[in-house]
Amino acid sequence: MSAPGRFVTLEGGEGVGKSTQLKALAAALRARGLDVVETREPGGSPGAEAIRRLLLHDLDWTPEAEALLFAAARADHVARTIRPALEAGKWVVCDRFVDSSVAYQGGAGGLGFETIWRLHEAGSHGLKPDRTLLLKLPESEAARRADDRDTAGKDLIGGRGTDYHAAVVAAFDRLAAEEPDRYRTVDASGAPVEVTDLLVTALEDLLP
Amino acid sequence: MSAPGRFVTLEGGEGVGKSTQLKALAAALRARGLDVVETREPGGSPGAEAIRRLLLHDLDWTPEAEALLFAAARADHVARTIRPALEAGKWVVCDRFVDSSVAYQGGAGGLGFETIWRLHEAGSHGLKPDRTLLLKLPESEAARRADDRDTAGKDLIGGRGTDYHAAVVAAFDRLAAEEPDRYRTVDASGAPVEVTDLLVTALEDLLP
Repeated sequence: MSAPGRFVTLEGGEGVGKSTQLKALAAALRARGLDVVETREPGGSPGAEAIRRLLLHDLDWTPEAEALLFAAARADHVARTIRPALEAGKWVVCDRFVDSSVAYQGGAGGLGFETIWRLHEAGSHGLKPDRTLLLKLPESEAARRADDRDTAGKDLIGGRGTDYHAAVVAAFDRLAAEEPDRYRTVDASGAPVEVTDLLVTALEDLLP
Repeated sequence: MSAPGRFVTLEGGEGVGKSTQLKALAAALRARGLDVVETREPGGSPGAEAIRRLLLHDLDWTPEAEALLFAAARADHVARTIRPALEAGKWVVCDRFVDSSVAYQGGAGGLGFETIWRLHEAGSHGLKPDRTLLLKLPESEAARRADDRDTAGKDLIGGRGTDYHAAVVAAFDRLAAEEPDRYRTVDASGAPVEVTDLLVTALEDLLP
């Protein structure tokens, strides 16, 4: 009887407004009567949050160890939070998911896309979102927002150089081109309420 | 000019005396003039020790997350401790390595051998020991020693049931049969000094 759960992820480089839009999108979906779980990566379950602390602040990991830790955190997040919610018919909206690992560690980090997809297969049976919303800014605007962010608040990965972050953006573009059914690219340069409207529109075909 | 470093691992089920034999074997190799690094898994480098704490005591991981965390810890251990020592011409003797992941998570845990080998390839470029020494006890003796161990001191994995541990032993036997050049099976039921002698003998062809 009940509609199936849907899994929606927000992706993009640093400073595109994912965290703000996650809350606004969840609110907009709830206003349509949907039962919505908001979550984020790395994290989203007790084990994954423990791994998050290791990943973002504690130690200097090799790219390989970093990719494995992200995959481990995601395996826990999927098993403990995402799959149970989807099986209960809820909508799950998640700030970053496997595509971020593919873009950051696989693309910018040089491990290759395929390695990351294999780790995702091993850890999470390759679960993919029903829809991935890629927030994009014109390059100049992205740079301005990144500069405005409090440097002390930047984590290890957010603090990497501009070449690294340009490679992340390029990798997301490639992913969006590879999976046009799953991906929708959304202009994030407007006012927050306008961006939220664009995100909801990009989900229209999934809404009950 | 200098002899190459060698990488030797000790493997086996619970209670076969690996920790004791690791120290004794390292001492015997040092007595022959070798520069020896003693290490253990999970752990053996700062990042890997941090992951060890997550793995053994904190949380209830899925088999997939557990396997990824072991692979991440190993990637750090290999990059920070094992490869630098081998490149410096040292001998590395290690209490457990990838074969334990294959036997525990791959065999007893049901993920399959191949999944664990793939994670090892992704994390540590598939590094294999020059020699793996498999300590074995007659079944009755292994059970007696396991019972004698302080229950409070058992970690999460050591505390699993007898079926699980029988599957671990069977998996090690299969690994030893698959790679006879790398593996030597050593009877661990004698006095500690006798077992150490057997271990050194099993390394004779590698000694300078």
